[in-house]
Amino acid sequence: MPDRPKCVVLLSGGLDSATCLSIAVSLGFDPCALTVLYGQRHQVEIDAAKRVAGSMGVLDHRFVSVDLNQIGGSALTADIAVPKGRDEKEMSNDIPITYVPARNTVMLAIALGFAEVVSAQDIFVGVNAVDYSGYPDCRPEYIQAFESLAALATKAGVEGNPTRIHAPLIHMTKPEIIRRGLDLGVDYSLTHSCYDPDDQGRACGQCDSCIIRTKAFEALGMCDPATAR
Amino acid sequence: MPDRPKCVVLLSGGLDSATCLSIAVSLGFDPCALTVLYGQRHQVEIDAAKRVAGSMGVLDHRFVSVDLNQIGGSALTADIAVPKGRDEKEMSNDIPITYVPARNTVMLAIALGFAEVVSAQDIFVGVNAVDYSGYPDCRPEYIQAFESLAALATKAGVEGNPTRIHAPLIHMTKPEIIRRGLDLGVDYSLTHSCYDPDDQGRACGQCDSCIIRTKAFEALGMCDPATAR
Repeated sequence: MPDRPKCVVLLSGGLDSATCLSIAVSLGFDPCALTVLYGQRHQVEIDAAKRVAGSMGVLDHRFVSVDLNQIGGSALTADIAVPKGRDEKEMSNDIPITYVPARNTVMLAIALGFAEVVSAQDIFVGVNAVDYSGYPDCRPEYIQAFESLAALATKAGVEGNPTRIHAPLIHMTKPEIIRRGLDLGVDYSLTHSCYDPDDQGRACGQCDSCIIRTKAFEALGMCDPATAR
Repeated sequence: MPDRPKCVVLLSGGLDSATCLSIAVSLGFDPCALTVLYGQRHQVEIDAAKRVAGSMGVLDHRFVSVDLNQIGGSALTADIAVPKGRDEKEMSNDIPITYVPARNTVMLAIALGFAEVVSAQDIFVGVNAVDYSGYPDCRPEYIQAFESLAALATKAGVEGNPTRIHAPLIHMTKPEIIRRGLDLGVDYSLTHSCYDPDDQGRACGQCDSCIIRTKAFEALGMCDPATAR
């Protein structure tokens, strides 16, 4: 069997990135996982990302910390309360306080460097324009612009091998993402999505991320296997 | 006097970024400095950046660490020897081993987030296409692509206030940069450019960065005031 081409997958340990990783594997890539740690709640994210990567046979998994809390501006990196119990209308009205300024740009930039180092021409990112319509850096035109930038940014790009940015979930609803992942064998009990877990790493059940996740599993007639854990 | 508009200046503590900061000040901006620490030799860079920022009256100076050594790939972040004593032909032939994969993309991404948090619409970066012709992410077309990305990436961009990326040194030679900075009152004895300083933070004098810097001061009939320190 010929060597599978390498790719870099941004892996937060959440539902979307786990699905994205499974899609990269299903397409025949040998995935290198990259977990970018930008908030304060590192250990929960590290644990989930490790579990997910391990379950899909990832051999190369790197963790890069960026202390974005130095620049603040988000409930996820600064000392601002995470909103709880909001309905879908409230979530979709505005860019939420959990929006981390330039987060996807920072993560994709680091992924771009990692891809260059491991000679991967493909980067997978689990951004999703449907459930996170308030996040400017989850839109298809943003991903396209990053790909244009990448072609100019790196040695590989200059040498005629520009990096491709894959965002396979971008037009999928959350239930569609879960359905796809289940078809590919993703074990969602290993994933972690909560913006505000307790000291034991348990999901709060009330933040936007928990609510979107719970509703998605309900729409499929399921309980969230991570909450049942 | 009306409030000056804020801007973000990427400040490494080197000659180029110090000049870039002085240009931002001369244009009437109130600069917020951002020092992104991506290598191992943190303290020397922190000290130089602090001295430079202090000398130009910067009130808001943030330090963000990114452990790019986790992904390796450069003499500046991984355990690879910094080349010494090369002539200009050797320097310009290839993308050098001191090239940090996606470094400018990572730094600009963090600057973009910082600019959003402090409501600055302008980012200054001291990239230079003349002396660093081997670095893909120092070219004008790269800066233009990042500006296009920024317009799509952030809340401010979506709301009609896209970030402008200024690279005022991009077409200047190193002597031209120094001449401009001297005209604006930059104290180059405070700056630090060496890729491989000793334990006391003294410049090696032999790496590409030291050689380019020394030659530039010589071209102006001067000694490097940082070496004379």
